[in-house]
Amino acid sequence: VKALAIDLGGTHATLAIVEDESILAVRELSLDRAQGLRPVLPLFVQTFRALSSETGIPFSACEGLSFSFCGLPDSRTGRILSTNQKYDDAIGLDLPSWCQTELKMRFAIENDARMALLGEYIAGAGRGVEDIVMITLGTGIGGAAMMNGELVRGKHAQGGCLGGHLPALFSGRKCTCGAIGCTEAEASGWALPLIAAEWPGFAASKLAAEPEVTFRAVFEHAAAGDSVALAIRDRCIKVWAIGAVGLVHAYDPELIIIGGGVMKSADVILPVVQDQVANFSWTPWGTVKVVAAKLGNNAGLLGAIPLLTKVVRSHAKTV
Amino acid sequence: VKALAIDLGGTHATLAIVEDESILAVRELSLDRAQGLRPVLPLFVQTFRALSSETGIPFSACEGLSFSFCGLPDSRTGRILSTNQKYDDAIGLDLPSWCQTELKMRFAIENDARMALLGEYIAGAGRGVEDIVMITLGTGIGGAAMMNGELVRGKHAQGGCLGGHLPALFSGRKCTCGAIGCTEAEASGWALPLIAAEWPGFAASKLAAEPEVTFRAVFEHAAAGDSVALAIRDRCIKVWAIGAVGLVHAYDPELIIIGGGVMKSADVILPVVQDQVANFSWTPWGTVKVVAAKLGNNAGLLGAIPLLTKVVRSHAKTV
Repeated sequence: VKALAIDLGGTHATLAIVEDESILAVRELSLDRAQGLRPVLPLFVQTFRALSSETGIPFSACEGLSFSFCGLPDSRTGRILSTNQKYDDAIGLDLPSWCQTELKMRFAIENDARMALLGEYIAGAGRGVEDIVMITLGTGIGGAAMMNGELVRGKHAQGGCLGGHLPALFSGRKCTCGAIGCTEAEASGWALPLIAAEWPGFAASKLAAEPEVTFRAVFEHAAAGDSVALAIRDRCIKVWAIGAVGLVHAYDPELIIIGGGVMKSADVILPVVQDQVANFSWTPWGTVKVVAAKLGNNAGLLGAIPLLTKVVRSHAKTV
Repeated sequence: VKALAIDLGGTHATLAIVEDESILAVRELSLDRAQGLRPVLPLFVQTFRALSSETGIPFSACEGLSFSFCGLPDSRTGRILSTNQKYDDAIGLDLPSWCQTELKMRFAIENDARMALLGEYIAGAGRGVEDIVMITLGTGIGGAAMMNGELVRGKHAQGGCLGGHLPALFSGRKCTCGAIGCTEAEASGWALPLIAAEWPGFAASKLAAEPEVTFRAVFEHAAAGDSVALAIRDRCIKVWAIGAVGLVHAYDPELIIIGGGVMKSADVILPVVQDQVANFSWTPWGTVKVVAAKLGNNAGLLGAIPLLTKVVRSHAKTV
């Protein structure tokens, strides 16, 4: 099965023609998220035409267009429900009609975290498993869940996507989502400078000399023996580990896949999370495996085929 | 639709003939959970025969037998997966065969928390809503979730049932489930004496004179102005409220139903939880309603009809 695929992030879009578990051709476009989505749609069409003629694959050979979006779409209707300050004009757009008119094919859209899970499921760390929780550690903490081979979506398309917003500390920091003490508020990229600033001894730490307290800085200084960096690193990993146990209890998975830039330090992170999940989850049937994501930025594109064939068909059954 | 229904608790069983949203006849049996389930099965048959002749409703008029169990059954197979120190022999029993042989009808079994949700869904506080999280506050914190009209179950039949075991405090108390700082470990009946014993000023509080620190004692002394009881009460409510926000983020419901003995103080509990859920959940579509359970101990019996008609039929589709 072949498809067109768009992965839209905050600052750029990746467009590709994919076939089953492979990306046949790919093009990256730099975008300005403040500019909106509508003005770049013609550029998408033009880019797909170029990819099509380059590969010799006509649009008619494609199952449809898969769109991975950095906000919350409703995959049942193809509409975008909320945008999180990126491409705010997307809420009013009728993308399924645009796709039908311009590309003459079916349109399918999902949230980028769910797309990453679908990609890992079909072609990466989740192959052969139907019950998966994915956690993406970055500026925020993203997530998605699959139960019995189907994405967890929920009434308002939010189910499974807010795994970074389960509580870790009920008396904790105010989160960007509005809640208190979410794992994201206690151990994400945006929270890191706030955590560090409050840490006893921070001023004397090597971290204080960094222009910005990033995960890279924390993990590097921790590895070099800086005690504050080490303590902050271990606290973040502990929050992720406890959060992973919460997600096991919420979704009953067999596998947890962790992605995001900080997983360059998977050798430090995975053993702690795996140990916590093995010893502190209530799973009388056995042990949930914890692994690193394999596909990196390609996951959202490779989710195209399961999105178009599996997810959209399952909506057709239930609507 | 008529059915036989059993609600098996730790110390007693309630048996009934139900029709749609009503209980037509009911009988309560005192049991000893240490004794096991096998020895009481003949008593169940005998009791159902008595109820049948009392009401004039023959077994042949019943859709099946619905069994609400105080442990973790797999509703797909009718087998019991784990028992939590109650009726441990139940794991080896072939209840569907027993039911077919002795009562000549279909057998359906579910966990008691899911049954309570099904009861409230069909005949109580959840009428007309298909996306519900139920929380039962008691010695432990039980839970169940329904998404798109279907119970959340998961690969190992644990999904949605461990809502009391999402973290509230990542550095908190060891929970009976094995994890750390679960809402249950921070604000349940069994945790209450441990919370109180550690509370500053506890020895001087009126609570210290109680034979046992129960929710009843905490809420009564709090209402009478005891400052320690008040602080413990408010901390528990805050943990439940934060836990409710986590459950909103996990399952994307429209409605949260809270049950359990402590809901005699619903007037104190509900406004805080509703306020927290309204102001701290990430629900751009609107506000999740928080309400008290309506059916009390009858919920597990009244879940019989949806269990037999809706849930079991949906398994048949997917197996």
